[in-house]
Amino acid sequence: MALKVALLGCGVVGSEVVRLVNEQSGELQARIGASLEIGGIAVRRLGRARGTGLDPELFTTDAMGLVTREDIDLVVEVIGGIEPARSLILAAIKAGKSVVTANKALLAEDGATIHAAARAAGVDVYYEASVAGAIPLLRPLRDSLAGDRVHRVLGIVNGTTNYILDRMDRLGAGFAESLEEAQSLGYAEADPTADVEGFDAAAKAAILARLAFHTPVTAADVHREGITEVSAADIASAKAMGCVVKLLAICQRAEDKTSIGVRVHPVMLPREHPLANVAEAYNAVFVEAESAGRLMFYGAGAGGAPTASAVLGDLVAVARNRLANTSVAEGEEDTGLAVHPMGQTITSYHVSLDVADRPGVLASVADVFADHGVSIKNVRQEGSGEDAQLVLVSHTAPDAALSATVAELRSHDMVRAVASVMRVETFSDH
Amino acid sequence: MALKVALLGCGVVGSEVVRLVNEQSGELQARIGASLEIGGIAVRRLGRARGTGLDPELFTTDAMGLVTREDIDLVVEVIGGIEPARSLILAAIKAGKSVVTANKALLAEDGATIHAAARAAGVDVYYEASVAGAIPLLRPLRDSLAGDRVHRVLGIVNGTTNYILDRMDRLGAGFAESLEEAQSLGYAEADPTADVEGFDAAAKAAILARLAFHTPVTAADVHREGITEVSAADIASAKAMGCVVKLLAICQRAEDKTSIGVRVHPVMLPREHPLANVAEAYNAVFVEAESAGRLMFYGAGAGGAPTASAVLGDLVAVARNRLANTSVAEGEEDTGLAVHPMGQTITSYHVSLDVADRPGVLASVADVFADHGVSIKNVRQEGSGEDAQLVLVSHTAPDAALSATVAELRSHDMVRAVASVMRVETFSDH
Repeated sequence: MALKVALLGCGVVGSEVVRLVNEQSGELQARIGASLEIGGIAVRRLGRARGTGLDPELFTTDAMGLVTREDIDLVVEVIGGIEPARSLILAAIKAGKSVVTANKALLAEDGATIHAAARAAGVDVYYEASVAGAIPLLRPLRDSLAGDRVHRVLGIVNGTTNYILDRMDRLGAGFAESLEEAQSLGYAEADPTADVEGFDAAAKAAILARLAFHTPVTAADVHREGITEVSAADIASAKAMGCVVKLLAICQRAEDKTSIGVRVHPVMLPREHPLANVAEAYNAVFVEAESAGRLMFYGAGAGGAPTASAVLGDLVAVARNRLANTSVAEGEEDTGLAVHPMGQTITSYHVSLDVADRPGVLASVADVFADHGVSIKNVRQEGSGEDAQLVLVSHTAPDAALSATVAELRSHDMVRAVASVMRVETFSDH
Repeated sequence: MALKVALLGCGVVGSEVVRLVNEQSGELQARIGASLEIGGIAVRRLGRARGTGLDPELFTTDAMGLVTREDIDLVVEVIGGIEPARSLILAAIKAGKSVVTANKALLAEDGATIHAAARAAGVDVYYEASVAGAIPLLRPLRDSLAGDRVHRVLGIVNGTTNYILDRMDRLGAGFAESLEEAQSLGYAEADPTADVEGFDAAAKAAILARLAFHTPVTAADVHREGITEVSAADIASAKAMGCVVKLLAICQRAEDKTSIGVRVHPVMLPREHPLANVAEAYNAVFVEAESAGRLMFYGAGAGGAPTASAVLGDLVAVARNRLANTSVAEGEEDTGLAVHPMGQTITSYHVSLDVADRPGVLASVADVFADHGVSIKNVRQEGSGEDAQLVLVSHTAPDAALSATVAELRSHDMVRAVASVMRVETFSDH
């Protein structure tokens, strides 16, 4: 018996999937209980077919015809983007096919529609490759932690920005030159906006938050700040505190458990935190759960082979479910937790101020914090004269109070400049 | 609709499972599609029932009667040990119940019997809690990596020994005093044999090897060395090389891919390896796979709540499978890979020798390595006179050749003493 797979897209990931399905056919058959056969490959231009060594007859530009073809059992979507991926996936689901996708943008924007369609049709939609590439993360969150309560998820889910920040940390390099090096090595794209402005991480944060808290979250719900403003001075400030700067996706249940916060922004993180040691373009996701405690999942977040590994793992699962005549329904449970605005999120700030070198500066600055109900955790004064600096770390407070404090400091007459502002994260108290 | 759970054992883990099933009943019901109800608890003495706040009617000393009771759907076994756990689990399976167990000893000794019985009866046996406690690891290995080829698994799977080695590394303390501290803090038992001699890790290594390589492996197949011989001098030697000492469970496919090696022993590991930073009693498992590349899973390896989290995750899965009238068959695939003896395993040694301080020592020692076909990667000479030392690290070679080299060095006339011998692991070349 054979299950027929339709492949949508045959780029870096797609061609690797085809290679693995053909090369490991024996192992896959043993694990699934049936063989997998590539039944067709949809591409934009048939020129793609050349050089793959595959039967040219497999290739088609009629993706819609392919996903609804009667002999197709499973559909793998690695085109990316919202359309035509969404229409193709919905058509495949409606035609009774199970789907494996790596499409974070689509799932973050309209996952609810996809999951509802899958439930209605009794088919699977698996998407392990959409977040943190090869790292088995989404199914563990969904399945293994199904009997636990997640408090917080902290993730390095974008390899490009981690590579850049790691290089800035290790070499003291600036953002611009680090980005350039990342581009020349293929870690960053010619147009790096999706990565460095945090859009990619925000889509992944939405997917993680939905799985962790069983409530619908879309990319639009995610507060997003990128790393383009991170300076060598910020990195040096972090170092002086025993911290490293990372771009984190953070999904957190509010203390009162009635809402969640979902955000992506640069963070100062203590070097003893397991995420602090995640170097180069690696990804890692740190989970704090009520019973399980602290967990971390680490691995390659992108690349053809790692992503294909995740796609194949999903393919085995949906193939087995198909043979067993079952499917995994997702998104039935809705805990009704709303996403609160960034201003309500409880955070802590690190602030470096260039200040006037005269008595009363600290008292005056401390007053500003106090006026906004923010208490100061520690402060140190550095330099003198032109170089006089105050470095403050706040206790936790609503982000709105902290950002109002910083806004007032910017126009304070004893503050010459706000040299660095960044949120600080540590282990939570749970 | 309710699914009835029989609990075998009500110690630290069992009582936590009961607490969570009761406390999170709403969430569990939403995730499963049916409620979970504790139908009975088997204990050795009914005195245990007191103080749990549970209906005393639930408790029984007739475990066999409980697991075969007609109204029971699912059985959770947290007694541990081979018997009576095996008989109870097999009886439960035969009676059509699905089983969740944390029993590493049983699965490592006789997993094949258990899995075969489960296949025959069409029920589930899930055992995430048996290795690395709360860390979602076994299901990811089994499911998410089902479309990949695992080359090597390196695991810190025993928290007690990691706590002791971490303390020795950080404080320069000796083994005996570190063990004593671990005992006083509850990290080590009064009789620490199972932990410090590597028996616990060996059972887990057998389970990991079977899942990673799809071939039957039992604890008896695992080469095992504990940490009782690890000295402060070994730790210092490791430090001088930029390494840390860890007790690792290592499951590795041979280069020629016709066999596997499974072993537990202390290892010098470079500090830049992600496992090197796993401190205190934490567990972590590092996986090298063909497509996925390097992955790591990190978290709490023991304790009532973390273990209960893993048990509950499994309980949700088997409950859902039961409602969907399906089950996950394990162990059908047998790749036929045999476990080769330790002597054939390819390893690398670090050797510190107290040597006579006279010309020709290095040449003479190097000859011994060469005679056994072992090449030397690097060597440094330290001290002079009474303190003259040679520190050598070999290239990789069959373990038998390396251990024969060391045996000959022990009786070599220019070697006063073999001060430290330990295997070295780094990233593999795959």
